[in-house]
Amino acid sequence: MGKSERRGRAPSPDFVAGNGLINRRALLGQGIALAGAAGVGGVTGAAAEPLKDEAWSLEFGSVMQPREAPSRFEKDVVRTLSNPKGEFRNSHARTPHHLLNGTVTPNPLHFAINHAGVPDIDPAKHKLVIHGMVRQPLEFTLETLARYPLVTRMAFVECAGNSAPMFSNAPMQLTAQGIHGLVSNSEWSGVPLSVLLDEAGIDPTSKWVIAEGADAHFLARSIPVKKAYDDAMVAIYQNGEHLMPANGYPMRLLVPGYQGNMNVKFLRRLKAIEQPAMTFFESKTYSQILPGGKTYRFNFLMQVKSFITHPSLGHSLKEPGFYTISGVAYSGTGRIAKVMVSADGGKSWGEAALRGPIHDKAFTRFVMPWRWDGQPAILQSRAWDEAGNVQPLRAEFVAMRGETKQPVTNPLLFPNQHYNSLTSWSIDGKGEVKHVYA
Amino acid sequence: MGKSERRGRAPSPDFVAGNGLINRRALLGQGIALAGAAGVGGVTGAAAEPLKDEAWSLEFGSVMQPREAPSRFEKDVVRTLSNPKGEFRNSHARTPHHLLNGTVTPNPLHFAINHAGVPDIDPAKHKLVIHGMVRQPLEFTLETLARYPLVTRMAFVECAGNSAPMFSNAPMQLTAQGIHGLVSNSEWSGVPLSVLLDEAGIDPTSKWVIAEGADAHFLARSIPVKKAYDDAMVAIYQNGEHLMPANGYPMRLLVPGYQGNMNVKFLRRLKAIEQPAMTFFESKTYSQILPGGKTYRFNFLMQVKSFITHPSLGHSLKEPGFYTISGVAYSGTGRIAKVMVSADGGKSWGEAALRGPIHDKAFTRFVMPWRWDGQPAILQSRAWDEAGNVQPLRAEFVAMRGETKQPVTNPLLFPNQHYNSLTSWSIDGKGEVKHVYA
Repeated sequence: MGKSERRGRAPSPDFVAGNGLINRRALLGQGIALAGAAGVGGVTGAAAEPLKDEAWSLEFGSVMQPREAPSRFEKDVVRTLSNPKGEFRNSHARTPHHLLNGTVTPNPLHFAINHAGVPDIDPAKHKLVIHGMVRQPLEFTLETLARYPLVTRMAFVECAGNSAPMFSNAPMQLTAQGIHGLVSNSEWSGVPLSVLLDEAGIDPTSKWVIAEGADAHFLARSIPVKKAYDDAMVAIYQNGEHLMPANGYPMRLLVPGYQGNMNVKFLRRLKAIEQPAMTFFESKTYSQILPGGKTYRFNFLMQVKSFITHPSLGHSLKEPGFYTISGVAYSGTGRIAKVMVSADGGKSWGEAALRGPIHDKAFTRFVMPWRWDGQPAILQSRAWDEAGNVQPLRAEFVAMRGETKQPVTNPLLFPNQHYNSLTSWSIDGKGEVKHVYA
Repeated sequence: MGKSERRGRAPSPDFVAGNGLINRRALLGQGIALAGAAGVGGVTGAAAEPLKDEAWSLEFGSVMQPREAPSRFEKDVVRTLSNPKGEFRNSHARTPHHLLNGTVTPNPLHFAINHAGVPDIDPAKHKLVIHGMVRQPLEFTLETLARYPLVTRMAFVECAGNSAPMFSNAPMQLTAQGIHGLVSNSEWSGVPLSVLLDEAGIDPTSKWVIAEGADAHFLARSIPVKKAYDDAMVAIYQNGEHLMPANGYPMRLLVPGYQGNMNVKFLRRLKAIEQPAMTFFESKTYSQILPGGKTYRFNFLMQVKSFITHPSLGHSLKEPGFYTISGVAYSGTGRIAKVMVSADGGKSWGEAALRGPIHDKAFTRFVMPWRWDGQPAILQSRAWDEAGNVQPLRAEFVAMRGETKQPVTNPLLFPNQHYNSLTSWSIDGKGEVKHVYA
């Protein structure tokens, strides 16, 4: 029985919005509804034929390694680098979201930005000092921090400059990695900052803590004490192992939901003070210029956001039929409450299914069953968080925040940050994917 | 003000069991109770001194890499190999639990056992066939599977032979890696098996599915259809990226909570049948011999278990004071409900705090605050799952399952499996850790 016959028998799916979006109820139960709706390209009567034994089934395989590496067929699943020759400037490594799935970013692929290269820190010599407006200055090593009761949580970290290409007034043809590669999601374990500040006896009149890193830049940011006592930690493990060198080894600050730069890496100092320090990064780089010429000062929060990773630029659809639209959603405010998906450029919307436990200030994976009829489509996602915040539509966002007058090819030159509006991928009649504004 | 003065001021902690176990309530709130109880070794008045700038703070650091590797100071955080030269026999790679924290096992450190080496599979040529007692045989590639709505979940995978050294009648001096290194925990994403079997139209009288891998061993196991419809999946992502080669690239079966061998790797065939296939692995290797000579047949479930990773053999305590006892707990039946910890070899017990969201059939990290007084102590953990199952005490377990008459140095030679009793670490007056039975 051939593929077309099976498709002929399939009941019409419960479409929930235009251009083939299928009601997520199809995912419930035993999969029966989905099976009827699907007819994925892999179905074929040839399966009744004897299995062919490939070369790898006929010989003893290779030796396992102490630290395993991915298959040679996965060589493209890497971070892209903005400064691969190590020139004396900043350097970005972007996460390949269009090649990943689930919610965890593997440590070797977690995004990183460093302003003075990656320091080679000996954890036996590195120290973290807590001083300033405290009753008792304290000094810690990786070893002494590890004696505290650690907390463990999922959290995304996102550079404020992530998605900067979206400020261009013409859509740049970049993958989800090129546009949104400066956000990643990990399980972090560390010591709550509240425990350390309590032990140091922070003065109640101290409202800020300066966090300083041990890289050659001595990168420093001011952290509100209120946030320090809310959910900040000194992280010493990332997805189970000690931090990666470019992500702050041996210890970093984690301020969940706040802009990446504040999660100070190579943390060597926390100084309690009355006023923010007005460091280079907070007075210049992260004070965003608004259309009228005013700037946001201390605009820490990474707001609710989502983007589709599958399908997206870099993929192509080989034939009409059943596909899954999938992506990640997250909010610096809390948990993701809802993700809506459109296949017709925002004319109609269907609610996506959210997969797995929904963590506070962490990636949530959404999936939307979809039957592509072979006609042009424009895919978008839009997320809501539990506090009711929603991604603004692009027209709303541009009105608030502006866009560049000319398309710019170097994303590093974009003047603005904190993009959290929609991303749109168009599919043409041949199944090719492009980045569009819609 | 020196360390001793601060300790002198600390209020007496709320001890909850013998040998210094502190009530987990100390971890609640703003950390105030803990700070008073702590006085970790890192505390020192020297923190008021100017910070020393180490070499790495004074020069531009190294270039980032497309796939990042751990710091050179983490070179010991690797899997240990039972067959490093690739001889024509099976091969084990064990997870270094005593050097990890949190709950996620990084992909390069996930345990693996292969019986015919690691096959070098081209995902463009690999096929998965579903046939046997089905209405319509189906054939899938990695690409067509990826078009389905994937599910994402945390799950541990544990070899039935994990902890085999615990069957010795004398405690073997191995680390948590050497004893318990054949269990790991990941986020897996894949297609629910129920969806694929529904689409193939499995015959209602079929009660088993034979799963066969594409390695040279053609490893095969029989899976109950009931489990297939419960929570089994064909996994194609592990912690966000495609599977590691030794963990089944490009696709494996995941049967959460069932013995590792059933999570067939390099999955190439699922054949629906009436009766189990009585393959080599289920008729010989995984039919455990009981003390009376009878055997367990189809004893799939990995039962509730826990072990302490910090402190454990390979660590030493440098001085009396505050420490955290920490480890992992998991159950093939469901969620972890409770972990009790003893510091006096089981005479008295205190309830540990559980960290982070508690996932079904996945690692849960437990922590127990502890003040070590410098006297000998014996640390144990004991876990309960949500169904009320509890780890048996060692005497109970040995009565049921037996132990070897002589200490054996090669853990591969142990005759038995499914150890889920307690693990005990002794601390002597010098802070040295040993493996003991208690």
